[in-house]
Amino acid sequence: MQITDARHTVNHMVHHQARLDTTFAALADVTRRGVLEQLRHADASISDLAQRFEMTLTGMKKHVTVLERAGLVITEKVGRVRTCRLGTHQLEEEAAWIARHQELWSARFDALDEMVEHLKHKEKTDVRNKRT
Amino acid sequence: MQITDARHTVNHMVHHQARLDTTFAALADVTRRGVLEQLRHADASISDLAQRFEMTLTGMKKHVTVLERAGLVITEKVGRVRTCRLGTHQLEEEAAWIARHQELWSARFDALDEMVEHLKHKEKTDVRNKRT
Repeated sequence: MQITDARHTVNHMVHHQARLDTTFAALADVTRRGVLEQLRHADASISDLAQRFEMTLTGMKKHVTVLERAGLVITEKVGRVRTCRLGTHQLEEEAAWIARHQELWSARFDALDEMVEHLKHKEKTDVRNKRT
Repeated sequence: MQITDARHTVNHMVHHQARLDTTFAALADVTRRGVLEQLRHADASISDLAQRFEMTLTGMKKHVTVLERAGLVITEKVGRVRTCRLGTHQLEEEAAWIARHQELWSARFDALDEMVEHLKHKEKTDVRNKRT
């Protein structure tokens, strides 16, 4: 691998990890998940969202900024109203990370099950051998 | 719905949301995700993990505590060594939340596409009608 290729790969990995950090952090809040659920149905202004979640405008603005940085929400100001809609981030990398964890989790526990079965079988055989 | 049922449902929802908060926050860190990736292959002591991630013992302990609270890691102290292994939390609710977001995201964007197509078609027809 050439140095430029290696540097590109490292850069890509760092960005990938930073994106996962930002997205998972954005999802780690019940209000922010609620805002996304709301925007799946219809666009909404920040004041609509503040009202719906019984929150100050400033509090809601902060949540929307976190979602915007994660690419989960896009906002647009028309006149005095800032409208929020779903961003283009489809959570593909996050879904893939979780799926991979689940897959390897199962593999790991299957291996442990097998080991337990093997030990049980061995114990039975040992007992039988002692009897004979 | 009886009051006890309703209370049960509300409790369930609050717990569900709190669990999502805790898990997504636990996943929002590159070292913690790295620890989980490591434990998918083999159990490890906290000092093994600290060494591998070039971190102080105290720093690693903090990360492991966050993972433990989220049910993603189980630790067991034997003598002076605390061993970490994968917890029983399989991230099912988190995967379901993301899958639902992706599904409704697509539905919302399909609806927008359809609206754009409809407007394009309408424009064409209008132009044609004006010409005749």
